[in-house]
Amino acid sequence: MAHDIRILTEAELRAMVPLDTGLVDVVEAAFVALAGGQVIMPPILSMDLAAVHGEVDVKTAYIPGLDSFALKVSTGFFDNAAKGLPSLGGLMTVFSATTGQVQAVLLDNGFLTDMRTAAAGAVAARHLAPAEVTTAGVIGTGLQARLQMRAAHLVRPFDRVLVWGRDTEKAAACAADLAEALGIEAEVVRDPAVLVQRAQLVVTTTPARAPVLQAEWLHPGLHVTAMGSDAPGKGELAPEALLRADLYVADRLSQVERLGELRAAIEAGIWTRGTPPELGAVITGAHPGRQSPDDITIADLTGTGAQDTAIATHVLGLPC
Amino acid sequence: MAHDIRILTEAELRAMVPLDTGLVDVVEAAFVALAGGQVIMPPILSMDLAAVHGEVDVKTAYIPGLDSFALKVSTGFFDNAAKGLPSLGGLMTVFSATTGQVQAVLLDNGFLTDMRTAAAGAVAARHLAPAEVTTAGVIGTGLQARLQMRAAHLVRPFDRVLVWGRDTEKAAACAADLAEALGIEAEVVRDPAVLVQRAQLVVTTTPARAPVLQAEWLHPGLHVTAMGSDAPGKGELAPEALLRADLYVADRLSQVERLGELRAAIEAGIWTRGTPPELGAVITGAHPGRQSPDDITIADLTGTGAQDTAIATHVLGLPC
Repeated sequence: MAHDIRILTEAELRAMVPLDTGLVDVVEAAFVALAGGQVIMPPILSMDLAAVHGEVDVKTAYIPGLDSFALKVSTGFFDNAAKGLPSLGGLMTVFSATTGQVQAVLLDNGFLTDMRTAAAGAVAARHLAPAEVTTAGVIGTGLQARLQMRAAHLVRPFDRVLVWGRDTEKAAACAADLAEALGIEAEVVRDPAVLVQRAQLVVTTTPARAPVLQAEWLHPGLHVTAMGSDAPGKGELAPEALLRADLYVADRLSQVERLGELRAAIEAGIWTRGTPPELGAVITGAHPGRQSPDDITIADLTGTGAQDTAIATHVLGLPC
Repeated sequence: MAHDIRILTEAELRAMVPLDTGLVDVVEAAFVALAGGQVIMPPILSMDLAAVHGEVDVKTAYIPGLDSFALKVSTGFFDNAAKGLPSLGGLMTVFSATTGQVQAVLLDNGFLTDMRTAAAGAVAARHLAPAEVTTAGVIGTGLQARLQMRAAHLVRPFDRVLVWGRDTEKAAACAADLAEALGIEAEVVRDPAVLVQRAQLVVTTTPARAPVLQAEWLHPGLHVTAMGSDAPGKGELAPEALLRADLYVADRLSQVERLGELRAAIEAGIWTRGTPPELGAVITGAHPGRQSPDDITIADLTGTGAQDTAIATHVLGLPC
């Protein structure tokens, strides 16, 4: 019963998978499939290992029409830094969608998650941001801050990027990296309110547990993507911001209610708009999305197993 | 961030992992750990892929004191037989319990599940069967029928084994294999009632959705292990059998209520004994277990992530 199984390391995957519009299209297709209602995506399996300051999350999804499905394990072990090891890790296992046989083990240490998360941000920007974005802003200074801006620039080629972070040195490093990567002006701002005010597209990329973006900062013609919240205690936007926006869009309703920005708004009892649309419905046109250049829109991204299956299947179709 | 990851194939694992008392001890220790209440074992993640007649189950557990934890994916794709492929498959990924880093990928195609399941049967027999078992019986004629009897023989060296299955030819093949493997008499019986009547230890190993073992067949001095039911629609024992037994023991209460023999008894409204003990409590002596050679005992095994973590950690400690 032996059959060939591809084992790909993080280094191999980094060489194979660029952050480009092809990848954005792959992740966009996953959101379209999700909207079609045919995707089978069980709730995330989570294991909290408090005794070792660790957590394990498992996501999977079956997308009809794709040859494969992925099962992704993400690990976070927060004593690792003291050991000189990365806190985050994990891998994807890829199975045949027709026989269940293991096709590949992608030892990516979270790299593919980083890429599909950035690509999802670009999908949100493509379908929700105003057509013209000259200035983008990012809140947060980590890897996703860089990747989100690089991905967004693929679909809205802004000519200036603003960076805010609690640590000004890290913000400067992030801005320098973005200036080099994108060949545009990159500027550290001292006040996140100013960042939001000057930008037409803002992405929040923090693990914040208290809002880093206030409702009163929102202005006409702004799109905000909040991608940092992925657990019940997290949230980057003031809950009132969701009401102040003309449109709030979820990546997956069943997830944002528990893990995303919507959770705090529901818990605060201020969410009065019923069932929000999912990003896939905006992409297909089932929901009209942004109605005017002056609308304020928010996308809430918690990360879905469908994105994992999409990128993993994409990887198996790439030349080595 | 590269680090060594062991990749072991099914063939390598088969050469490394014998079904012996060492393995029974490893799985017994997992039940003891479960009973201690310190194991972290999330609910099973299940994905039903009706469109392709497939199903995917994911189990995991963290056992304090072990260096590793496993995450196991089991696949069942029931159109595979027509393609000349095995229906069941899967793999285990093994992580460091302190850093979360991937230590190994065990491409076992379900072999380790088969082994840890058989070993769990032996643990149940060791702690619940009468001290003297001269005749054992197995209901079912598949791989687990063979493995359960081989495993039980390690702890109760019976000198005769009885086999019943709906297909007499398969029963004969199973009996022949057991006679050769164990060097004892093996006999096909035409009536499962007779099999139960003549045996002191019976293991049911079928995917039955209607009882294959009736309550009135139970007799003093009998132990029954039911290991076939692992899904809400399955069940091998008549629900009344659980009441007729002096002692009913679960591998994991939260699982048998949904997936095991207890489910049907609860649904039928006949379960009146409150919370049954778990096997681990019988092993540790927290529950007295069998009180007399004439007691009738039943063990209900649904399979736990703790067993997977136990065998996977065991494998990593074996010489190659």
